Amino acid sequence: MPQDSDHGQTIAAQGSRIDAYVDRYAARAAGMVASEVRALFAVASRPEVVSLAGGMPYVTALPLDTVGELVADLVARRGPVALQYGSGQGDPHLREQICDVMRMEGIEANSDDVVVTVGSQQALDLITRIFIDPGDVVLAEGPSYVGALGTFSAYQAKVVHIAMDAEGIIPESLAQTIYALKTAGSPIKFLYTIPTFQNPAGVTLNTARRQQVLDICQRAGVLIVEDNPYGMLGFDGEPMRALRADNADGVVYLGSFSKTLAPGFRVGWALAPHAIRDKLVLAMESAVLSHSSFTQLAVGQYLATQPWREQIKSFQVLYRERRDAMISSLEALMPADVTWTRPSGGFFVWATLPEGLDSKALLPRAVSERVAFVPGTGFYADGGGARHMRLSYCYPEPDRIREGVRRLAGVIEQELRLRDTFGTGSSPDHIGVDTPGPDLA
Amino acid sequence: MPQDSDHGQTIAAQGSRIDAYVDRYAARAAGMVASEVRALFAVASRPEVVSLAGGMPYVTALPLDTVGELVADLVARRGPVALQYGSGQGDPHLREQICDVMRMEGIEANSDDVVVTVGSQQALDLITRIFIDPGDVVLAEGPSYVGALGTFSAYQAKVVHIAMDAEGIIPESLAQTIYALKTAGSPIKFLYTIPTFQNPAGVTLNTARRQQVLDICQRAGVLIVEDNPYGMLGFDGEPMRALRADNADGVVYLGSFSKTLAPGFRVGWALAPHAIRDKLVLAMESAVLSHSSFTQLAVGQYLATQPWREQIKSFQVLYRERRDAMISSLEALMPADVTWTRPSGGFFVWATLPEGLDSKALLPRAVSERVAFVPGTGFYADGGGARHMRLSYCYPEPDRIREGVRRLAGVIEQELRLRDTFGTGSSPDHIGVDTPGPDLA
Repeated sequence: MPQDSDHGQTIAAQGSRIDAYVDRYAARAAGMVASEVRALFAVASRPEVVSLAGGMPYVTALPLDTVGELVADLVARRGPVALQYGSGQGDPHLREQICDVMRMEGIEANSDDVVVTVGSQQALDLITRIFIDPGDVVLAEGPSYVGALGTFSAYQAKVVHIAMDAEGIIPESLAQTIYALKTAGSPIKFLYTIPTFQNPAGVTLNTARRQQVLDICQRAGVLIVEDNPYGMLGFDGEPMRALRADNADGVVYLGSFSKTLAPGFRVGWALAPHAIRDKLVLAMESAVLSHSSFTQLAVGQYLATQPWREQIKSFQVLYRERRDAMISSLEALMPADVTWTRPSGGFFVWATLPEGLDSKALLPRAVSERVAFVPGTGFYADGGGARHMRLSYCYPEPDRIREGVRRLAGVIEQELRLRDTFGTGSSPDHIGVDTPGPDLA
Repeated sequence: MPQDSDHGQTIAAQGSRIDAYVDRYAARAAGMVASEVRALFAVASRPEVVSLAGGMPYVTALPLDTVGELVADLVARRGPVALQYGSGQGDPHLREQICDVMRMEGIEANSDDVVVTVGSQQALDLITRIFIDPGDVVLAEGPSYVGALGTFSAYQAKVVHIAMDAEGIIPESLAQTIYALKTAGSPIKFLYTIPTFQNPAGVTLNTARRQQVLDICQRAGVLIVEDNPYGMLGFDGEPMRALRADNADGVVYLGSFSKTLAPGFRVGWALAPHAIRDKLVLAMESAVLSHSSFTQLAVGQYLATQPWREQIKSFQVLYRERRDAMISSLEALMPADVTWTRPSGGFFVWATLPEGLDSKALLPRAVSERVAFVPGTGFYADGGGARHMRLSYCYPEPDRIREGVRRLAGVIEQELRLRDTFGTGSSPDHIGVDTPGPDLA
């Protein structure tokens, strides 16, 4: 129990944190709220906890010596350019190289239509900035990427979820939702989709549905924002053909080097129809003037001098082994009524708990048992997701993944016993969108 | 003259650039327009043109070998951290170092109140994002930084200019403007000011006025956003005491390493009262997740291992010599009715043309005489500035500065002869805010 003097200090300290500006903020600031689970993730970053929560790529697999030499060489040869302001659109040579990367997914593009951004998160922010007035509708898979939902919320968009299954977006659901919204007079600004190795669901839109989604959106005049950070990290054969490969005018494609190289450079991009590209560049300049020349040239140098396709292949092998570790231990250890998706690439498995269990209520117990995950509600803008959880296999070593799943299975079993003894536990309501920490990318 | 087939191609090419999304953009996108003078600056970047237009620091003066070794060492020792996602608020150790830098301007701050941003431009963007609803008022010096005006415009703020003279903001003008706006019921969200070595005017708010500005704003409950990219680059003695040094609760301070180290890292920061800091971090995560760990750690490594105070002193000497070259050649060469400010630090001189001359109308002629500047209208949100121009001395060598001023003086003399012969030339109306290219930073 605190002494009087300590107690006084506590009140004073709280006093200084009262927000003198509380009635001054913009309306959009009301949508910027910290995730309720953020404090738990601070605990989850302790080494004794197996984190199946974060979306951090395993950068330790990179040839660090080579990267070090490469950046030193960059400063020696091109220092005055690398250290100077660059163009708002991004380094022209890097934009050419980005076109080479996208060609692996069937995209033929002109580098003039590429804008380099501070991670693809910034591309999302800029696209939302130029299209969304408060109340405008964004269509998105349910569940969808927590960072995208946070950005849509920050611009006061209304997110309407489209149902998906193990083969991605259900085209009938998309068509029906668009029809209902149009009938109601709601302005749909774009469909946001992660068609390949989706975050968080781990599923991939199949080839037949890709054409259907393109057709539905084209007929309805709905722009598609195709977010593809994981497309190159498939475990079986060649990359999927991007949506953008079959429609240059109706798709804005977002890409990133965060998962195929390293997130620490924060180099992503948008490929957009020309008129939208113009607006993106202006929005980019208004937001940050220009991205770091240094990191852009470092990525360019890496692509020009290193066997980056081989590096991606070695990432594929690494993540496939981890996916296998997670799936096999889920199969071996989880109680009968728990189900999960089987990703063929990317970082994530989406698990569904039995009736009566709530993933957010489960999290504190899981963390005390030294395993962490992300509860499903963060991936829905409408309060859904309570029975779901995202399990990441990208960062921990396979043995740790198996140990994490073992701990998690134990927690779920205990919850099931409690449910069977005392009935359904409390299901906390979810209000608003969780703003993600960067570790939830 | 093009052949028919070429002509057909031209039309087709134009056709593909028609904006299919013209009626879909957000209302704020209407405020995102390219500067009319942008095309001219493309010409102005040719080597035969002396550019007195750009605000690019002279990074060639940095010890490039040392910087190269430093980044290589960084990857070798801390690669897995430098290449990974970081926190939305920024690297904790760099935030401590930023507090050491700010201490030179009399600021005592806790690193917990610092947010690292993608240049201070992003800090401006985030502050505007959390405070500005369409139509809200921002007070700013007239003239003010073109990149800030562009950001305010992108969020549909109404900018009201405060008069300034050779000693900075005129306190009476500030008090009167606040009173008039409050009487009219206009919501003032903040005062944006560059008190030291202002961009573009090159003037500095004197010590007595600093306290007056703080008092006026505190009494009126107006938050101050103090933008201080040039404060360490004074030519005479110690740095000025920052406004933030005398008011921790009412001032958001923006700083940058772009001018004291290098813009290519894009590392700036905001120091904000605690509640605003919370909102800034959430806005930062929504905008870009996190800044580049790599560039943050590189700046941190530079500060930890290099004599950065000595480097700043050598920048001071370098820019003072260039300021002297500009001022002495202006004195020697300009027609009698041209006037200019005399900066005691920073990058810019603000020149005023005689009655009847228009700086934007002058620019094409100046460029054809191989000298470039930025016309004054870009630095006003209200159409002012037609008789003014910003002359930068930061980037060209002293001899080139003298040559540039010589060419510019010739153009102005010719214009004066035209004016005297034919009367006042046309004064093109200025509409909207010019969005700057990064080279106008």
